[in-house]
This record gives sequence, structure tokens and C-alpha cells, in this order.
Amino acid sequence: MAAPKNDTFLRALLRQPAPYTPVWLMRQAGRYLPEYNQTRARAGDFLSLCKNPAFATEVTLQPLQRFPFDAAILFSDILTIPDAMGLGLHFADGEGPKFYRPLRDERDIRALAVPDPTAELRYVLEAVREIRRALNDSVPLIGFSGSPFTLACYMIEGGASSDFRHVKTMLYQRPDLLHRILDVNARAVTAYLNAQIEHGAQVVMIFDTWGGALSHAAYPEFSLGYMSKIIAGLIRKRDGERVPIIVFTKGGGGWLNAIAECGCDAVGLDWTVDIGAARAAIGQRVALQGNLDPSVLFAEPQVIEAEVAKVLASFGAGDGHVFNLGHGISQFTQPDRVHAMVEAVHRLSPQYHCLTTAA
Amino acid sequence: MAAPKNDTFLRALLRQPAPYTPVWLMRQAGRYLPEYNQTRARAGDFLSLCKNPAFATEVTLQPLQRFPFDAAILFSDILTIPDAMGLGLHFADGEGPKFYRPLRDERDIRALAVPDPTAELRYVLEAVREIRRALNDSVPLIGFSGSPFTLACYMIEGGASSDFRHVKTMLYQRPDLLHRILDVNARAVTAYLNAQIEHGAQVVMIFDTWGGALSHAAYPEFSLGYMSKIIAGLIRKRDGERVPIIVFTKGGGGWLNAIAECGCDAVGLDWTVDIGAARAAIGQRVALQGNLDPSVLFAEPQVIEAEVAKVLASFGAGDGHVFNLGHGISQFTQPDRVHAMVEAVHRLSPQYHCLTTAA
Repeated sequence: MAAPKNDTFLRALLRQPAPYTPVWLMRQAGRYLPEYNQTRARAGDFLSLCKNPAFATEVTLQPLQRFPFDAAILFSDILTIPDAMGLGLHFADGEGPKFYRPLRDERDIRALAVPDPTAELRYVLEAVREIRRALNDSVPLIGFSGSPFTLACYMIEGGASSDFRHVKTMLYQRPDLLHRILDVNARAVTAYLNAQIEHGAQVVMIFDTWGGALSHAAYPEFSLGYMSKIIAGLIRKRDGERVPIIVFTKGGGGWLNAIAECGCDAVGLDWTVDIGAARAAIGQRVALQGNLDPSVLFAEPQVIEAEVAKVLASFGAGDGHVFNLGHGISQFTQPDRVHAMVEAVHRLSPQYHCLTTAA
Repeated sequence: MAAPKNDTFLRALLRQPAPYTPVWLMRQAGRYLPEYNQTRARAGDFLSLCKNPAFATEVTLQPLQRFPFDAAILFSDILTIPDAMGLGLHFADGEGPKFYRPLRDERDIRALAVPDPTAELRYVLEAVREIRRALNDSVPLIGFSGSPFTLACYMIEGGASSDFRHVKTMLYQRPDLLHRILDVNARAVTAYLNAQIEHGAQVVMIFDTWGGALSHAAYPEFSLGYMSKIIAGLIRKRDGERVPIIVFTKGGGGWLNAIAECGCDAVGLDWTVDIGAARAAIGQRVALQGNLDPSVLFAEPQVIEAEVAKVLASFGAGDGHVFNLGHGISQFTQPDRVHAMVEAVHRLSPQYHCLTTAA
């Protein structure tokens, strides 16, 4: 396969010269887009959408047809792995994800096994291949997975949680059991991401959505350590090209130095962090991705432009910045606001880069 | 009124020598205590409990009858001020607080006024007086309020929120309106806390529960600045004794340097922060309060003791530490676990202090 025609995103991740700051959005294929909701309605429900490669390809490409994003991200669910482990993923109307069989019993934990991505998760790999074909090397494709700890949160709680009571009880009372789950998860994520890379993902991102709920002492032991382990086992070069890895711990702003040492190429930042300060602290080692407050997109275009300008100025001159929100885009965002944001990033960022676009 | 017989808490807040590390818990009078649930049932509902000084006194004292806490905290709700402003506070069964009249309309915002604490909030002041009488100078009494921004979150959203969509839309689109609300809130909190001090509160704490949802740039402008303004207007000395002020922004671990400059005597820390690192950064200016992960209390006593020991060791030798959880105690905590925690703090902490208890 050829390198993408627009490789700005790959260059930024590797801190190589690029003519402007690339931009994509977490959850860019999602409910804020009417065409996404239409496809989802045709698919029947969210899981059917995820499990059908043709539908997954269709919604992955939708935001790129509207906005000049510099990357595509595989449309899939964060919980495909525990679903493949047999926990029984389902979505109740208007609620988040749930598992029929939450993982709390010691015998069930001992029996937990790594799923074969080419069997139980074949639908994801087929989607990756089909999306790459449809993208036709226009922009790079990002594959992804939840982090071992984030997957464990859903697996043990049986769904979303505000206090992670069951996970944390296990963490403090039976850390051996939690480590057993995390070890299986880490091996599962490694196999899953490697399979995505083999099927065409050019970048992979690990979403550690709930790592920020841990104490400063527990985070390295129960989340970051397992992400490092995954990264050590990932395919780093494919078809002669380096496969960059992005790690994002929401709420991890206090631990950026440790995160930057985990072996990743880029660190995602939420909006509570000053990206300029983060760059001063860790930006010589990794690229940074972020970090506009997603709520800025509720405001009018001139406000959006001003806030985009602040993030770009805070990062400052030089390469190694991927523009993104500090969290997934809200379903309540009006699509024209995204247009204003992308346009502002592309228009305002060249001044911070030395490389000019070939005439 | 006399100084309390046990003044360890006051000494720690003022970084004065004390024989051991004092301890109390956020939400120490609450649903984890069967006797609290009994009183609440007698009162009828939560708001009736808050609004009846006799009941409020009863539940404030309950945890002190079980555990040798070094401070009492006024039992009240965080939303008494917006309730007094006429927004119509109520609690739906099994849900959090709600307002009948959320504050989003410009005319309503312009009409918002500071309530007179001695009129609409008299029930709180009567509770403060009655609790002081009942405490009989055994331990100090903490008064409290929500921060202007945290109150605004509930006022504008109309209840709890996971994304603060309406508040943040106002912040980015009509910051003038949000500043108007925050200004009224700051004046209301100042008057309210001063009235609590005049009626006997010996320490006051500002709970900035949702400040951590702001961006690094918005936090000083929309939350911290208003807390500084409040502190500048508070009574700092009463009956010849300094009235210490504690500020706690949950999720504010990245902004501790700025928080320590707001005029407070002590800064509360959540469990994502290493208290030793926080002390190294800001502990020469303020006392620190925290910061055990509340989930530690789901574990067995020997685990609790080990985790208490880690927090004490991280703070290290010297004064200026008030032991607490990094957030309110969970309703699912077994009371005997609290006993294990308090006992461990009192038994393990004297080694870190030079002052020995008078024989």
C-alpha cells in the first residue's frame, strides 16, 4: 500500500516538518452528524452498525466528506474486546454500554482468555481493510482500542460508573485479581491492535478514558504499566513506514512525564492542560495531540476561531502538534461549528510551521 | 466562646505544631451511617433534614459520637444559596438535586439578587449556633459553601451534569452573563460564610466541586478568581482567633500553585495528587488537606492502615497536614472501616510531629 497523499498527520506524530497543523476529532463519526444517524437507523442499532464492515466504512468516511480532516479513525466500539471475551455487550436505550455478565467472580476471572482477533473480531479487521480501500490513500487511518484498565472498568462494573466502586474495591482488596484481568486485557489489546495494523491501520491510539480516576500511586501500576507492555509488543514498522502510537489518559494531566516515557509517539491532552506547558515539559520526547475544550464548539464561529488561535499559540512555533478536542465531540454540536474549527486550524497554523506547501 | 479543647485541626490549618495529624471526612455525616438514615427518615426527606436546625445538629454530631474526629462540619446542602435565590431546589427520588427554574434567561440572570443570610438562610445560621452549643467546645466547627462556579453549574444546568453543556455554552458564547451570575454568587457566598462565622463557625471551607471541568485558561477567570474575591471579603478573626479558610477544587491538581495564592490557609487535594509532591510545590505557603482515595475504605482494615501510612509518609515530617479523603465518603462504606482509618491516622501520625501530647 502507498503512503497517504496527505501525510501531515503522520509527520506531526513523528515531529517531522509539516506545512500546517493537522486536525481530526475524537468521535468525528458520530451522532452530531445527521447522515450518521441515518446510517445507524438503517443498521438497526449501534452494535449492528459496528459489526457490519460496510456500515462501519460508510460512517467512518462521512465526516471526511464534510470536513477536510487530516485523518480517519476506524468506526468501532471501545468494548469490542470484552464482547469477544463473552461478557455480553448490549446497549439499553438512552443508556451507555452494559454487560450481561460483569466480571467479579474469581472463577470467571481465572477463566478469562485472550480472544483471537481474526476470529471473534474479524468484523473489525474487515472494516479496517474496507475503510483503507475506500480512503484510497487520501488520509491515514487510525486504529484504536480501549486501555486494559478502561476495559476492566466496564467489565467489572458491568457498565459506566461514577465511582468505580467494584473496580476499586478489587484494586485495594484483591489486586491480584485485577492484575490478572489487566494482564489478559493487555495481551488481548496487543493482538487486536497488531491485527488492525496488519489489516491496514497506519496509526494506533489507546484510549485510557478512566485512568484519571486512579490515585497517583495506582495509575502507573494499574493503567500506564499495561499500556507500556502493549506498546512493547506492537508492530512498529509496516510496509517500510513507522506506525505511530498515541496514548490518551483523560484526566492524566498530572502524570504527563510518566506517560511520555511509555514508548508512545504522541500523548493526547485533555482541555484542563495548558498545551504550551505540556510541550515545555515533555514535547521534546513526543508529539502532543489536543486540546480544545469540546464545549467551545457550542459557541459561534468567531469564538471558535479565537479559541483555536489560543491553542495554536500556546503550542507555539514548530512541529509535533496534532490538533484535536480534549475529549470526544458532543452529540449536541452543530456540524457547521466543526467546519469553522477545521478551517481555523488550517488557516491559522501555517505561521507556526517552517515548511511551506509545495506550490 | 472558648477555644476548642481539641485544637489539633486549627493548629494544622495554621501550620502550627501539633502532636498528631488531625482527621475528619468530607460528608462524614451521611448515608453510610445507619443513625443518619434513621434521622433522615424521621425528618421526612433530605431538605427537611437540612432546614430543621435540631435535626441538622443531631446528624452533625452523629459521626463524632462514633469516631474521634478532630472536627465537625455543619450538616447542610451545597445548594442552599440558589434555593434562597428562588430557583426551587428539590430532590427527585434516587436522583441528585434539581431546580424547578434553571437560570438561563438573560432577564432572570439580570434579576438575580444576593439573598440575606439572616432571612432566607436563617435555618442554617440557627443550626450553626445550635451545633456549637452541642459541641461544647470539644472540636472546632467547619462552616461551608459551594464555590460561585459550582453553584452556577447547578443553577444553569438545573441539576447535576456530565458535560456542563449549558454552563459552558454560556461561558464561551456569553461570558458576560456567566460573570454576572458568578459575581452575584460570590457576594452571596461572602455574606453567607460571614454569617456562619458570626454565628460560630470556626473554620470555613469552599467546595469547588466542578472547577476541575474548566479548561486551564477558564479556571482562573471563572472559578478561582471569584473564590479569591470571597476570601478577601471574609471575617478572618473572630473572638481573637484566626478563622482559617480551606479551598478545595476537585480535579484542580494541575493548578495548585495558583490555588495556593488565592488567600486561603489550606488547600484540599483529591486522590490523583501526590501529597508529598504538592507539599514540595506549595506546602510552604498553605496547609494541605487530604487525600486518601475514598475507595480505600471498601478494603479491609489492614489495607486501610497501609494506605493511610502511605499518605502520612508522603506528606512526611512536619505540621500543616489535615488528613481527609480526596472526596466525600461513599454511602456504600461500612462504618467500621472509618474507625480503622481514624485509628490508623491517630496511631501512625505522631512520629511525624515534634510536639508530644502533654502527659
